[in-house]
Amino acid sequence: MSQLSFQLVKVFENYLAKKNFIVPGNKLYLPIKYMLKLQAKRLRPLLCLMACQLNDDNYNNALPAAAAIEYFHNFTLMHDDIMDNATLRRNEPTVSHKFGINAAILSGDLMMINAYQYLEELNIEHKLICFNIFSKAAVEVCEGQQLDMEYENKLLISTSGYIKMISMKTAALIACSLKMGALIGGLPEKDCNNLFDFGKNLGITFQLLDDILDVYGNKEKFGKKHAGDIVQNKKTYLLIKALELANENQKEKMFDWMGKTGFVEAEKIGFFLDVYNQLNIETLSRQKAKEYHQKAFESLNKIDLPNEKKQPLKDYANYLLNRIT
Amino acid sequence: MSQLSFQLVKVFENYLAKKNFIVPGNKLYLPIKYMLKLQAKRLRPLLCLMACQLNDDNYNNALPAAAAIEYFHNFTLMHDDIMDNATLRRNEPTVSHKFGINAAILSGDLMMINAYQYLEELNIEHKLICFNIFSKAAVEVCEGQQLDMEYENKLLISTSGYIKMISMKTAALIACSLKMGALIGGLPEKDCNNLFDFGKNLGITFQLLDDILDVYGNKEKFGKKHAGDIVQNKKTYLLIKALELANENQKEKMFDWMGKTGFVEAEKIGFFLDVYNQLNIETLSRQKAKEYHQKAFESLNKIDLPNEKKQPLKDYANYLLNRIT
Repeated sequence: MSQLSFQLVKVFENYLAKKNFIVPGNKLYLPIKYMLKLQAKRLRPLLCLMACQLNDDNYNNALPAAAAIEYFHNFTLMHDDIMDNATLRRNEPTVSHKFGINAAILSGDLMMINAYQYLEELNIEHKLICFNIFSKAAVEVCEGQQLDMEYENKLLISTSGYIKMISMKTAALIACSLKMGALIGGLPEKDCNNLFDFGKNLGITFQLLDDILDVYGNKEKFGKKHAGDIVQNKKTYLLIKALELANENQKEKMFDWMGKTGFVEAEKIGFFLDVYNQLNIETLSRQKAKEYHQKAFESLNKIDLPNEKKQPLKDYANYLLNRIT
Repeated sequence: MSQLSFQLVKVFENYLAKKNFIVPGNKLYLPIKYMLKLQAKRLRPLLCLMACQLNDDNYNNALPAAAAIEYFHNFTLMHDDIMDNATLRRNEPTVSHKFGINAAILSGDLMMINAYQYLEELNIEHKLICFNIFSKAAVEVCEGQQLDMEYENKLLISTSGYIKMISMKTAALIACSLKMGALIGGLPEKDCNNLFDFGKNLGITFQLLDDILDVYGNKEKFGKKHAGDIVQNKKTYLLIKALELANENQKEKMFDWMGKTGFVEAEKIGFFLDVYNQLNIETLSRQKAKEYHQKAFESLNKIDLPNEKKQPLKDYANYLLNRIT
């Protein structure tokens, strides 16, 4: 991570510490404080500030938008972890596991309201447009989560359906983050939309990467159980692609494993790794991620600003993405 | 209900049917449609429109605020029913019971976002102030729900603590509804605040009434199980007041019943009704409700408008409250 990124994250953390809606001593706010203290990349706020900085050195104006996005993101994590029965998040117990489901529901709700309250802190000329962009992205995130839950009960999903789902569930908020930052920084509408597209494609890249890393990454680094997605039959790009390419025999065996209970985890993982190898799934998935990576950079290149202005965004995106190359 | 109220509710229902964010065919919106079709008084939207009408015959301007409030209210019901494990709402299955907990979480989240989207439909001069008032009330509702859940695990609560809780959980949104309506109608700030106070005290009155009706109302009319609050040890004003006034012997027996499982419901209800009679709880509770009723009307009287302008609000409040006199 570059020095600029570190600096921006620090400024953002200071802002969160100074300006927040937490009521000391009120138990409702404990899960919020806990959630915000978990190790996090602050990817969305950072991208928001960087987008603002493309055209305006005073990125402080974008801090409330960055905070709104981070609060909203954390609210979705709290609620998603309930829906997914997840017990671990960033190597620590999830809010629902630590504080209970009711606390995770209610504190999550409050975080969403707080997100809107952050938007009120924006300068008057940016408030209304940001309310609008923000709510649209928020709706997309919910619709994406709904698709994700529906996919859980479907045996066969198309890779294009999967990309659509992650573009809503994951990428919409990243795109919104960049667009709000660009607007606050005073970029023309065309470039705000270019940054939006950059964010959409970057977000899709991240999710594909996440899918790849679950199987081909390592536990310590990514805070997740190795190949947990395989164990849980999670419909990742890898699994969807494998089911698309598998012959009848492979497909039958895969469904067979997916229907089993009480299996030895290592055996199930081993089976799927074999199939993935036979079908070249790792390479195909990395290629797909690179494709979206490239699309993202094309949108960034369309923005009519000197290259050195865009370099920090490129550097940060590359830093995040170098794990797939 | 007066003819005016009927008319306003009809206008409101038409607005909801015409202007909404529902995506046909998307399953995420089924619980929202279901929830909005359940028999409801539309109390909050009606009060919002009436407050607007105090000073502006064109109450259409307040429709988006009324819809935002109704959406937010229904979102809280969806999530509260999960937290309370409730299976019945307005004589029909709750969303969590009918569609599952995950659907109730996610569709509830979406309803809250939609509520903010309705506020965007307001005229430009009212948007920002309404965003502000709305979010403040929304936070209060969550904090009130938190207090309510904490009270569940406490044996002794003060009646003043209870009033504080319901003034947040129930009354804050009613107050917000009236204040937004008044603002949109162009009333001066002082009177917007008088209407806010009217709503707070009216809301407290409603909740006290609800507590009374659970025990002394009837099932068909109110769509609830008779004395369900007693069966579930719900900390109502009646129970809290009874515990405050009971002698040691009565108190011990009450705690005894509250700790029992596998009891005959009618026996438990019979015991509490006896204690309530001995301690004059029904009368004391009705007195308390009347006290807040009176406070509400005092705030309304402070508003410097001809009486006939205020009459519809008075009539509607009295219509709602005549059940306690």
